[in-house]
Amino acid sequence: MQKVATNAVKTMTDDAIVEKLDVKQISSTAKTKFCIADLGCSIGPNTFIAVQNIIDVVQQKYQSQGLATHMPEFQVFFNDHASNDFNTLFASLPPKRLYFATGVPGSFYGRLFPESSLQLVHSSYALQWLSKVPEELLNKNSTAWNKGRVHYTNAPDEVAHAYTTQFAKDMTIFLEARAKELVLGGIMVLIMPGIPNGIPHSSVPGGVMFDFLGLSLMDMAKEGLISEAQVDSFNLPVYAASPKEMTQLVERNGCFVIEKMEMTCPRSRVDGPVSAQALTMHLRAGMEGVISKHFGVEIIDELFDRFRKKHDEFSSFLESKYEEATQLFIALKRI
Amino acid sequence: MQKVATNAVKTMTDDAIVEKLDVKQISSTAKTKFCIADLGCSIGPNTFIAVQNIIDVVQQKYQSQGLATHMPEFQVFFNDHASNDFNTLFASLPPKRLYFATGVPGSFYGRLFPESSLQLVHSSYALQWLSKVPEELLNKNSTAWNKGRVHYTNAPDEVAHAYTTQFAKDMTIFLEARAKELVLGGIMVLIMPGIPNGIPHSSVPGGVMFDFLGLSLMDMAKEGLISEAQVDSFNLPVYAASPKEMTQLVERNGCFVIEKMEMTCPRSRVDGPVSAQALTMHLRAGMEGVISKHFGVEIIDELFDRFRKKHDEFSSFLESKYEEATQLFIALKRI
Repeated sequence: MQKVATNAVKTMTDDAIVEKLDVKQISSTAKTKFCIADLGCSIGPNTFIAVQNIIDVVQQKYQSQGLATHMPEFQVFFNDHASNDFNTLFASLPPKRLYFATGVPGSFYGRLFPESSLQLVHSSYALQWLSKVPEELLNKNSTAWNKGRVHYTNAPDEVAHAYTTQFAKDMTIFLEARAKELVLGGIMVLIMPGIPNGIPHSSVPGGVMFDFLGLSLMDMAKEGLISEAQVDSFNLPVYAASPKEMTQLVERNGCFVIEKMEMTCPRSRVDGPVSAQALTMHLRAGMEGVISKHFGVEIIDELFDRFRKKHDEFSSFLESKYEEATQLFIALKRI
Repeated sequence: MQKVATNAVKTMTDDAIVEKLDVKQISSTAKTKFCIADLGCSIGPNTFIAVQNIIDVVQQKYQSQGLATHMPEFQVFFNDHASNDFNTLFASLPPKRLYFATGVPGSFYGRLFPESSLQLVHSSYALQWLSKVPEELLNKNSTAWNKGRVHYTNAPDEVAHAYTTQFAKDMTIFLEARAKELVLGGIMVLIMPGIPNGIPHSSVPGGVMFDFLGLSLMDMAKEGLISEAQVDSFNLPVYAASPKEMTQLVERNGCFVIEKMEMTCPRSRVDGPVSAQALTMHLRAGMEGVISKHFGVEIIDELFDRFRKKHDEFSSFLESKYEEATQLFIALKRI
């Protein structure tokens, strides 16, 4: 499904580079190299596809501007947490790649690169991960205590508000770090789950998945397979931002101009509905890590089996949701 | 033992940086960052110690020249083969490091970095590894067929010559790649096993270890634990160069000036003799990978047990060898 998202945003990414990257400005500062960072790269192959696409477009741009003889060498920085499986990433690097590959371990909610050392930053489906679960959610005395749920979907406003505040804190740090690291004129392309302006966060369409996940966990708690306290103290640190709040955060940072900010549908209409199996696998791939860390690996099979069955019950409801625009595409330029 | 080597060459590395690094020249090209590559870093901790030492000395140099306000940010590229355990390397990075860390998978016998992107290259005990075993050694019709041995120690001249030729090819590629990658004025510090000028390669003092290893393997072949053909087709791709041949290779490359080229003793006299156990562990750590790839992991314990016993037999002979200068220290400057 992330592959589909990659294809769907390819044209938009291409356009952002073709229209907004000033290769003359870039090449006057960078001279011989063009550095690209993919933040939250995981273990591939999506990161390799995205990076190769970026390089193709940048090369075309140099050629179309008569700068073929000034073609830079490309250095790509693949970033993810230090716990990411970089061994697998490195083993699966395309053997005939025309770039110098490096891995960068660490959280992108902080500095990862020297000042003015990057020409282009790309991040796809990584910025929905908060740096941590908002603390209020775990406090029984707080109005944001998130009892019986694992996310802000269908939760009281206070819960969603706690998430919004945490996201704003994280994104502020993210933008400050990237503003330092990108050269003037550098481009940043961000693709992440989003929510249209004006919809309450507690009603985010994609969140219905997390709702079902919470319900499946509560079913297991009622049957004594896990404890209710375990569910109460578990929250998914994922968030979908609206264009409006991202615009505010970018403007408050002040170092970037917004070249594009758009809600898109992550799937093309011709793809048809997603099967319960595919959705379950997708969700499991993304969430297995945080869930097994909290509940133990032994509940995972059972949990996602229940989730898949719940999906079957509500499939027509879910299908209507999937046609909605749930993907936020952002292209920023460092000024 | 590699830790010991690191300590022994610290002063020489410091001197090379203090005396030969022109920080004014470097900072005019690099401006805000200082990039260091450690080639053949393995999984630490020696690489972290070496890199921190380099950064300390560079910082002192900036300060002593009144350039404290121009202090660059440091970016360190840890390089080793893609099969190196980068996950372990990244997990053991010093948490309070004052540099941006990256991992670079790939052979240093080829380009790894963009043009003019490094200020300093460091490599300790990695360049003794050839890119491959010289092919003639495996050819029964060649005078360099290395029957019954695993190295050129005590072998016919043709065998040593095949190694020398392979080393020259590899080092030529290494120097060409690094000449591209280092900025003008950039420093390269290489520490590797060496052999004094004028000694035949087949008599390299450190090679006696490989001789014993070959004898241990032949003993096992005679007892039918492995086949003799397996021993005949196995050769360690390691080589110790002399200052004279390194000087010739550097001069032929023409992009570096030799700031220092010196044979040193890897161990200080006060350290006392190395125990059979320590030597066996050291050799095993370095060679286990290539040996088990050829013979299978199941022979490893038996082989090194036999090696340790052989060491006991010849311990007085070995001790006299250990006092010799077997370490080559090289400091080059990119011109």
